[in-house]
Amino acid sequence: MTRPHRVHVIGTGLMGTSVALALRRRGVEVFLEDANPHHLRLAVGLGAGTPVDEGVRQPDQAPDLVIVGVPPAALGAVIAEALERYPGAVVTDLGSVKAAVLADVSARAPQWLDRYVGGHPMAGSEQSGPLAARADLFDGRAWAVTPHPRSRPEAVEIVEELARLCGALVVRMSSTEHDEAVALVSHVPQVASSVVAGLLTTASEGQLALAGQGLRDVTRIAAGDPSLWSQILSANAGPVARLLHEAAESLHRVAVALEKGETSEYAGREVRRFLERGVTGVRRLPGKHGKRPETFVSVTVLLPDRPGELARLFSDVSSAGINIEDVRIDHSPGAPAGLVQLAVHPDAVSPLLEALARHGWDVHR
Amino acid sequence: MTRPHRVHVIGTGLMGTSVALALRRRGVEVFLEDANPHHLRLAVGLGAGTPVDEGVRQPDQAPDLVIVGVPPAALGAVIAEALERYPGAVVTDLGSVKAAVLADVSARAPQWLDRYVGGHPMAGSEQSGPLAARADLFDGRAWAVTPHPRSRPEAVEIVEELARLCGALVVRMSSTEHDEAVALVSHVPQVASSVVAGLLTTASEGQLALAGQGLRDVTRIAAGDPSLWSQILSANAGPVARLLHEAAESLHRVAVALEKGETSEYAGREVRRFLERGVTGVRRLPGKHGKRPETFVSVTVLLPDRPGELARLFSDVSSAGINIEDVRIDHSPGAPAGLVQLAVHPDAVSPLLEALARHGWDVHR
Repeated sequence: MTRPHRVHVIGTGLMGTSVALALRRRGVEVFLEDANPHHLRLAVGLGAGTPVDEGVRQPDQAPDLVIVGVPPAALGAVIAEALERYPGAVVTDLGSVKAAVLADVSARAPQWLDRYVGGHPMAGSEQSGPLAARADLFDGRAWAVTPHPRSRPEAVEIVEELARLCGALVVRMSSTEHDEAVALVSHVPQVASSVVAGLLTTASEGQLALAGQGLRDVTRIAAGDPSLWSQILSANAGPVARLLHEAAESLHRVAVALEKGETSEYAGREVRRFLERGVTGVRRLPGKHGKRPETFVSVTVLLPDRPGELARLFSDVSSAGINIEDVRIDHSPGAPAGLVQLAVHPDAVSPLLEALARHGWDVHR
Repeated sequence: MTRPHRVHVIGTGLMGTSVALALRRRGVEVFLEDANPHHLRLAVGLGAGTPVDEGVRQPDQAPDLVIVGVPPAALGAVIAEALERYPGAVVTDLGSVKAAVLADVSARAPQWLDRYVGGHPMAGSEQSGPLAARADLFDGRAWAVTPHPRSRPEAVEIVEELARLCGALVVRMSSTEHDEAVALVSHVPQVASSVVAGLLTTASEGQLALAGQGLRDVTRIAAGDPSLWSQILSANAGPVARLLHEAAESLHRVAVALEKGETSEYAGREVRRFLERGVTGVRRLPGKHGKRPETFVSVTVLLPDRPGELARLFSDVSSAGINIEDVRIDHSPGAPAGLVQLAVHPDAVSPLLEALARHGWDVHR
């Protein structure tokens, strides 16, 4: 296990600052650098590290690990420069796409390529900038580490140790495998969300009045930064374009089947098969805790709209020794009360219902 | 205001039983009927009403309103039969599509069409059946009421009063306007979610390991019942197919722009314009409470994984007089602690942060 001792983070946006905060939490010495002095000042103020220019640059202060957290389009150049500047350091990055960056670094700095190992923590936010950073952003998240045939084994080790220090779970794969995977689980969903959201631009107010939670969920990520996302999609153009053509063909086929539906029983069955395939796909997704989502059961409690009721509810539940896995509050506008959904393990449902009944709570299943 | 006094609900699934429960809450007399005796027994057991066969059918026990909550494919026939059986009653339905049903009823029962007014409460669940029913399912939700040129004004009035008795907000529109609207805000998002979920059927475990919250949100509704959804989509084939072709064209255009991206600056700008359109669309969505989502601020608290911590947190918050608008718990797999996100009004952020600090909670912004 090669633990990094002195780390240099280039780029103090959401990702870079979060990594710096996570490392500081583990006692690692962190230096920060950013072309944007405002971002750098904020990150330093948050306790993410020391500006690299303030330290006297002695040879014994050279970093053993450099983490590049700059926008996708700038990655290759900044990584190559870091490899040259710090001949004793391993260099990694936090970019969402890996094959194009590896090709770029190979072209710019072939002689130092053995010290570069790509990385991609699977965490983020619709927000950006150092103020959105969190030391726990990576806790329990996957962190893809993408070695290449020329990476030194000890360089791979230090990058994997970085991921673990930040609380993440290492998923090792090649840069090509990574890009195919994120096209499927991240980039194409992003574009699909934007397509649905884009259709709303011409909707009337009356049409929007009928919008429900399903539409909100489907379009939430469409609020992401267009500048960042256009760079990400462009950097992974091949795999994303292939899947987008496939998704577009599916939509056309469903549309044609619907148009033919009245005269063809086969077409009706085709729509249903398409929907069943979606159910199969969504059931494959690991839930929170890495378990299947259906392992929790949701119990809904009516919450009178008085101060202190939520505290009383949790006190009643916890005094019965029941572990709540998830909570959601659904206030209905205009209604005198709210609904609280408590998710628990199936074994805990009966004790929970008993405890709620004992304390007079109004339960809906 | 024409208030219904004696209501007959045909179909005791999720929607029919929820309407019955909501009406009982307001003291309306409800009779229930279902071809599925198991569903009927459950609905009666939940207190949703009296089985219609148990009452002696005296003329003075005839309903003034019949609510049809059967699957889309059966709607027209059941509505026409109800219009014939109860000559003094207004008949409405709870179906997700309105123009095809109106055409079907017009063909089957043209002489009684003046007593039919379509309705569609914009609430539901991925679950189905009477056990998923809730008296408050419609509280604060939109309820589309779709009169036609031959509807009697008093028939429209009683259906709108039904929606209000159930706690919903009436949105009046024609059946054609309704179907165009739900194609946009419900049916096409459903298909888009299924397309993305369907791509996951062939994903490897390693690829799925990189899945995050964004993918989960986009694909949540894809878990809906394929049998119900294929009926809904088929009943609204025209408007849905048109928008699906449009969405498919968008996906193709983005794919082609990505493929051309390396050699054409224009293509890169096209991807960005597409993403910006998505941001514009998602910002048009009204939030919960009919307010924009950004009116609440989220504060994240680190929760030690010990029993009673959640109760202690809510007690500390409520003793400071702070109103929590929404709560989310995010357990990180493998991490010793969980994160609780508390959403509050912007004015409450400072007092909340002070109260949390005073009680020693570890807060992340």
